[in-house]
Amino acid sequence: MNSFGRVFRVTVFGESHGSQIGVTIDGIPAGIPLHEDDFMNDINSRKPGKEGTTPRLEKDTPAICSGLFNNFTTGAPLTILFENKNVKSSDYTRSYLRPGHSDFPAFVRSKGFNDYRGGGHFSGRITLPIVAAGVIAKKIIDPMHIESKIISLANQTNFDEAINIALEKKDSIGGIINCDVSNVPIGLGEPFFDSVESILSHAMFSIPGIKGIEFGKGFKAAEMYGSDYNDNFIDASGKTSTNNSGGINGGLTNGNNITFNLAVRPTASISLKQSYIDTENNSIIEHELSGRHDTCFALRLSPVINAMTAIAIADLKLIASSFA
Amino acid sequence: MNSFGRVFRVTVFGESHGSQIGVTIDGIPAGIPLHEDDFMNDINSRKPGKEGTTPRLEKDTPAICSGLFNNFTTGAPLTILFENKNVKSSDYTRSYLRPGHSDFPAFVRSKGFNDYRGGGHFSGRITLPIVAAGVIAKKIIDPMHIESKIISLANQTNFDEAINIALEKKDSIGGIINCDVSNVPIGLGEPFFDSVESILSHAMFSIPGIKGIEFGKGFKAAEMYGSDYNDNFIDASGKTSTNNSGGINGGLTNGNNITFNLAVRPTASISLKQSYIDTENNSIIEHELSGRHDTCFALRLSPVINAMTAIAIADLKLIASSFA
Amino acid sequence: MNSFGRVFRVTVFGESHGSQIGVTIDGIPAGIPLHEDDFMNDINSRKPGKEGTTPRLEKDTPAICSGLFNNFTTGAPLTILFENKNVKSSDYTRSYLRPGHSDFPAFVRSKGFNDYRGGGHFSGRITLPIVAAGVIAKKIIDPMHIESKIISLANQTNFDEAINIALEKKDSIGGIINCDVSNVPIGLGEPFFDSVESILSHAMFSIPGIKGIEFGKGFKAAEMYGSDYNDNFIDASGKTSTNNSGGINGGLTNGNNITFNLAVRPTASISLKQSYIDTENNSIIEHELSGRHDTCFALRLSPVINAMTAIAIADLKLIASSFA
Amino acid sequence: MNSFGRVFRVTVFGESHGSQIGVTIDGIPAGIPLHEDDFMNDINSRKPGKEGTTPRLEKDTPAICSGLFNNFTTGAPLTILFENKNVKSSDYTRSYLRPGHSDFPAFVRSKGFNDYRGGGHFSGRITLPIVAAGVIAKKIIDPMHIESKIISLANQTNFDEAINIALEKKDSIGGIINCDVSNVPIGLGEPFFDSVESILSHAMFSIPGIKGIEFGKGFKAAEMYGSDYNDNFIDASGKTSTNNSGGINGGLTNGNNITFNLAVRPTASISLKQSYIDTENNSIIEHELSGRHDTCFALRLSPVINAMTAIAIADLKLIASSFA
Repeated sequence: MNSFGRVFRVTVFGESHGSQIGVTIDGIPAGIPLHEDDFMNDINSRKPGKEGTTPRLEKDTPAICSGLFNNFTTGAPLTILFENKNVKSSDYTRSYLRPGHSDFPAFVRSKGFNDYRGGGHFSGRITLPIVAAGVIAKKIIDPMHIESKIISLANQTNFDEAINIALEKKDSIGGIINCDVSNVPIGLGEPFFDSVESILSHAMFSIPGIKGIEFGKGFKAAEMYGSDYNDNFIDASGKTSTNNSGGINGGLTNGNNITFNLAVRPTASISLKQSYIDTENNSIIEHELSGRHDTCFALRLSPVINAMTAIAIADLKLIASSFA
Repeated sequence: MNSFGRVFRVTVFGESHGSQIGVTIDGIPAGIPLHEDDFMNDINSRKPGKEGTTPRLEKDTPAICSGLFNNFTTGAPLTILFENKNVKSSDYTRSYLRPGHSDFPAFVRSKGFNDYRGGGHFSGRITLPIVAAGVIAKKIIDPMHIESKIISLANQTNFDEAINIALEKKDSIGGIINCDVSNVPIGLGEPFFDSVESILSHAMFSIPGIKGIEFGKGFKAAEMYGSDYNDNFIDASGKTSTNNSGGINGGLTNGNNITFNLAVRPTASISLKQSYIDTENNSIIEHELSGRHDTCFALRLSPVINAMTAIAIADLKLIASSFA
Repeated sequence: MNSFGRVFRVTVFGESHGSQIGVTIDGIPAGIPLHEDDFMNDINSRKPGKEGTTPRLEKDTPAICSGLFNNFTTGAPLTILFENKNVKSSDYTRSYLRPGHSDFPAFVRSKGFNDYRGGGHFSGRITLPIVAAGVIAKKIIDPMHIESKIISLANQTNFDEAINIALEKKDSIGGIINCDVSNVPIGLGEPFFDSVESILSHAMFSIPGIKGIEFGKGFKAAEMYGSDYNDNFIDASGKTSTNNSGGINGGLTNGNNITFNLAVRPTASISLKQSYIDTENNSIIEHELSGRHDTCFALRLSPVINAMTAIAIADLKLIASSFA
Repeated sequence: MNSFGRVFRVTVFGESHGSQIGVTIDGIPAGIPLHEDDFMNDINSRKPGKEGTTPRLEKDTPAICSGLFNNFTTGAPLTILFENKNVKSSDYTRSYLRPGHSDFPAFVRSKGFNDYRGGGHFSGRITLPIVAAGVIAKKIIDPMHIESKIISLANQTNFDEAINIALEKKDSIGGIINCDVSNVPIGLGEPFFDSVESILSHAMFSIPGIKGIEFGKGFKAAEMYGSDYNDNFIDASGKTSTNNSGGINGGLTNGNNITFNLAVRPTASISLKQSYIDTENNSIIEHELSGRHDTCFALRLSPVINAMTAIAIADLKLIASSFA
């Protein structure tokens, strides 16, 4: 389903080239102060504009149509709408299914009824309402604090260079992003099946293009001895000398920062010649894609990852407060 | 919650040292043939016994107490119980919280009321009922087929050697396991929020000790160019020359095998001296753990991973058939 | 939560006097033909205009902003928006809480942050998006067919007379409505906890003002002997001579028409002098309400009841098809 | 599904003539004192033995196999098992489907694979684990207090007489039961779709044999004028002169007692000659039922109703505390 969360529940809707996209957020406590301005920082940081990102520009002004009264949340479901204006649907045709993209399985699954323009509902554009929902989630999880940063792009740490090379090649690149949550209370999560890793990974893999996640030492942990990996206690409050487990033991937060890395694949849409499925002629065709695309959409993901993390943790926090 | 699945729903219960552990499986179609014998292969393959695994031995005989009649499923919830017999609770005390384990956050979360014996509900023993549920899930997803295999232990491919070194050191090790699903129909999953990666990772991170997951090329994808990563079509049926995406595009299965790697941390419980929290004296204490533990529980995980994968995919399949 | 349904899931949002109200419908199979015109019949039949209904008039034009492409459903979530134009917020003040209304508990629950204008989210206006969702649900449950009719108003069967008396008294009245579903397949529902009665009553009691429901003979059944109540079989296909059980046995549909009665309370808002809570002065005040109200909103409920029934049954049908 | 509740979740399993029946309760806060003795009062009050109830006698001793440690809840899922001993399966045959019973739709739905003995999973026996779950729910909702009482049997208030007449006729009777919840906090519930009426009715219609529910004045409300029906405030704390709305306005509790009536149908199984479907010969057959049945199972329902009410309200209370 297009919903996430048990108590703090986020539902997204919309297509890349539809009239509006949006999100409904249910389970918001009443009385949280909220202005439309509060959204602009996160929304702007998601916007393209940097080198290596798509030239499609949208105003991305949030219109809150419910759940807010006199700039306070009411406890009723809060819906935020965004208009799609800068659409160039002529860039897209039904007939060519792009490799490395959702086009093919979406076509089969919907028996050909999917909105193919710009990927339809399978579009990075839907991360905009997620960023908006994250703004509210962050208010709920305060004083927990979330930061994401790019670790590498195409295995390099000089990011400008990595992007310039890709632009020259008319190719695309991916990267690795780290997300870190501080001020985390002890005991969020469940052992089965709603471990903190389960909930966070569930959320993260909803972000288009994420193909891997590791908590703490992650894949490196598989190479370590237990005596090195175990985070040894240094005092009776649970403080540890290391944070190899990424802040989570047995599915529960342990008070350390939650920290995890995400693998972001290179953008699927590239201008180089590739093989497409031509659904009209039921054949393979070599084709060069036109249209506007991110050379490296990983550049724009940090605010999305922060928002998704906030959404997942808001739900864990509200659920935990049921039992407090 | 201790439940997983929207239509095919699995609920686990029990503790390492309680009288019984079990699982209730709801949403099973009526009329599936099922004998108690059907469970023994998977249950036995999870059993310890190999070098590097715990000497705790249980009969692990499944008792089906509902949902089965004349060896066919009835459509009513099916509950399977297992007895805990070979328990040595004296190995455990409340007062020492083990490093790298759920002991500490479980203690805080439950305000000290958790069953600490053998990790209580936070125990690898709960993977037994999960394996049992997987037996039924596999019947539902047939002809899809799941196989898991160990890729490396402690970064080595000579597994016996890796384990022997760890045994000598009285230390523990982890490893990397690959899981592969074949005969997958096109179009399972959802873009938001129930991508196939979301659902599978949610399930996998419920398995104690999993700290990372990557689909297809995974973290390697972050180093590749789009032109290399995209799985190019070789015919109009959607066949591709590579499977870098691990069988999933845009959150949906694309007909290729679903393939993913899991990072398994080294066993938390080791006999070497480590720092524990002594809750009675509210202090740190150096301690050598007695008790029976797996040097490398990754050795026993393949049947658990197969079962969890089957459970997750059974739910995706039944949901998809709602829309067929 | 403001969502209903496990596979066919409806989420409503909006307030009586907000800018827009709407509904997101998830789980719609792809390929269902749908025009905006399809909505007008049901929407118009819900509209006021008849004697005994509020003079507030809205255009109620549905704007579908997602999930529809070339007049076919795509399988992505479908969102329908309606504008609120004809609002007279000056009719409402925060300070007076109306008796018999949600005003008081909504005020307490939201710590005073609720949107009080026109009842806010607790408004009959939210039944408009529900009617819209029902249009789609009806297409899914076809050839099942739903009809509702008023049985009595204020215990009378001459409805015009009942309304005229109430209008004269400046008072309000309620009534009893019957809903009947034909062409029902055998075996929808579950014994625990999702009996057909459970699912339908859950849906019905979401309609503002419903205070009772009875299936088949309902409360009369409590007076009957088993030999009279049991619907005796007249042939081996399950046909029965009576339908006292209202088409449901053991929580499952039995192939007979589903039939149930609903008790609709009299409209809470009346122009007569009543006692209100004055929150500003923390006192009770005698007051005569101005504003526009239905003398008998039961007159407008049949399309809402039909829609809710269709929504509930669409979910039951799609779930059942998982197991077919 | 066989589960109920969003945060406090109850899952039942078992069949009338299986080896064991039981319930798993998830979402119990840790640290609640609980002894197996705590169950006996409620379990005994559900037991048959009074005139007009079945002679099947079971020990009904609860075996708690998880979630309890040193007589306190641990926060892990708590499973309670009951053995079925006093089964007389020879009383039942597959081939005859009883009128007025789940036999027919259960047979069709399960394609003939259902456990028909004693109604299988569609049995009043499953109300035993529900009563057990209610014992825990009551501890959570304290100081809210629930009481149920029989209002009438077969439209009479002299209950002994009503039963004796039915026994003489070898027939069965139903009745009306009132349930009342006191000490209710203000603001539990949601307007859409989880009104208190929605949640309670969903729970109540899971009890076999319930065919109607009305809150407060219920069906009588449909005959009243608004000026009579509205519960007028008598002070600014929300106290009212009447409780016609049954303690619920706009789907939320208003601080008054929650009060509702339930219509209980007469027992389906009677010894008189009736028409059955003979599935072996695909025909109708006149038959006199043997076996042990309640003449009036309404006599045994009060503890079940209390338990279900407690379960539903425990979930509402824990959810509300997320937002406090």
